[in-house]
Amino acid sequence: MAHTAAANDTEMPTTLELVSKTRCFKGEVRKYTHVSAATNCKMTFNIFLPDAALLRKEKVPVLYFLSGLTCNEDNMITKAGSLPYLSEEGIALVTPDTSPRAAGVAGEDDDWELGTGASFYVDATQEPWCKSYNMYSYIQNELQLLVSESFAVDATRTSIFGHSMGGHGALVLALRNPGHYKSVSAFAPICHPSTSNWGRKQFTAYLGCNESAWAAYDATELAKTYEGPELPVLIDQGDADQFYRSKQLQPSHFVIAAESSRRLVVLDSRMQPGYDHSYFFIQTFIQDHIAFHAKHLKL
Amino acid sequence: MAHTAAANDTEMPTTLELVSKTRCFKGEVRKYTHVSAATNCKMTFNIFLPDAALLRKEKVPVLYFLSGLTCNEDNMITKAGSLPYLSEEGIALVTPDTSPRAAGVAGEDDDWELGTGASFYVDATQEPWCKSYNMYSYIQNELQLLVSESFAVDATRTSIFGHSMGGHGALVLALRNPGHYKSVSAFAPICHPSTSNWGRKQFTAYLGCNESAWAAYDATELAKTYEGPELPVLIDQGDADQFYRSKQLQPSHFVIAAESSRRLVVLDSRMQPGYDHSYFFIQTFIQDHIAFHAKHLKL
Repeated sequence: MAHTAAANDTEMPTTLELVSKTRCFKGEVRKYTHVSAATNCKMTFNIFLPDAALLRKEKVPVLYFLSGLTCNEDNMITKAGSLPYLSEEGIALVTPDTSPRAAGVAGEDDDWELGTGASFYVDATQEPWCKSYNMYSYIQNELQLLVSESFAVDATRTSIFGHSMGGHGALVLALRNPGHYKSVSAFAPICHPSTSNWGRKQFTAYLGCNESAWAAYDATELAKTYEGPELPVLIDQGDADQFYRSKQLQPSHFVIAAESSRRLVVLDSRMQPGYDHSYFFIQTFIQDHIAFHAKHLKL
Repeated sequence: MAHTAAANDTEMPTTLELVSKTRCFKGEVRKYTHVSAATNCKMTFNIFLPDAALLRKEKVPVLYFLSGLTCNEDNMITKAGSLPYLSEEGIALVTPDTSPRAAGVAGEDDDWELGTGASFYVDATQEPWCKSYNMYSYIQNELQLLVSESFAVDATRTSIFGHSMGGHGALVLALRNPGHYKSVSAFAPICHPSTSNWGRKQFTAYLGCNESAWAAYDATELAKTYEGPELPVLIDQGDADQFYRSKQLQPSHFVIAAESSRRLVVLDSRMQPGYDHSYFFIQTFIQDHIAFHAKHLKL
């Protein structure tokens, strides 16, 4: 089975290859691969399609979830327990991979915090990364166009969320594209990467030493200058999270930035006592996040 | 942190070593290792303890889940989506490993259907397996005693369930120990292993060529002669399951055997159209299984 869709501005046809499909709740989980123009390699994603979309009875709202360091397209869809709620709400879920893989970039597998599994969802400007590490454009433009042209999803009702590095990615995409997403949420996001080791290391590699280029990928910096429309944001953070404790995440910086946004970034930031950085934490609050997005996707 | 418990009939002390603990919903997921007398090697299990048990305010009911071929102690607790319902019901969950590992048995890692990850939950009588492959006694006696002596769980309110090879294990343990389990359920269980390739191959290796020894580990044969008390059984089977289609599972054999049990095996056997053998299938029906066990554990 193959779909053909115009996947980028040059109208180069992109072919989706179905890897697997599995019935789950009242819908299907499918895995697809395709050759990406943005990343210059084969990319993989999963999609949950509720029955209404499978039967093409209607276009359904769609949620994108960006995973964290070391993860791939499978972590969210297998471990987060989101599917009962998505099925009930009739919302599609897309879980992309976290980076290019086997892209042929020198050193891409040398360090778990850089390269494979660690894209930080930027468009790299520096060698050797700039050929493939363009996950910002991949997610924001290529993948979303491909999904909306290939499946019965309503691109005008799109929201996004993520975990850790993927929470950073979700916040950045939402803040840089006002009005594109109905809502954004995050579990334990990296909130101020320009000032934490998770961020400074990768931005230096991908974007270069000139820190002025970093603000475009920093949720806290972007929130300070966000000009609307109102963006609903939900953040959950566990206080037993080792990366929160070692100041890699810094949610308080984002809270202050949101307050300075004249309430255009409408933030509900919750500290959850006792929870860590794992998918067990995500499981615990996933129902709240799906309900939050469902409310805004169905307004 | 270590617990000491009398783990077997000889009162040899067994020390539980805590590997990790993570808050999840209103409770904790913990991973422990211990040296097993039954399997002569180190074994690992996960346990979900709801807050009532953590605070030792009360002893809570306990569910054991046995996983299938190639799985370990993590599959169920990370991928099945059971924890919201267990937390809500206040029921503990124990997920043992599926076999000894690195037990030093010749050939244990040569074949995914035999040895590591493929114990079939028997007490092996044949060389080289009999030294370690005693998962029936491990689960039924050693592990359950260790858990009930180490945690605030009520051993008089125990139920069991499983998937595929683990569904077979759960049914066998429940049928061989009348009154011990309040209820048993299974996802896509191997129901008649004496007559399917999944079963004949392993029973020959573990129990020998004399098929008369196999009936003690065959749910269909055990159901025929079960003498009570009444045993509530729930089975879900997907009709798109490749192993169902290739006749490895044979739920209809178990249905006929349960009918011949003078209704002492009280079976609800459900065929679920479109679902396969994966944890996406388990996710879909896990809420029903938890509710089924909760009803019987709380009678």
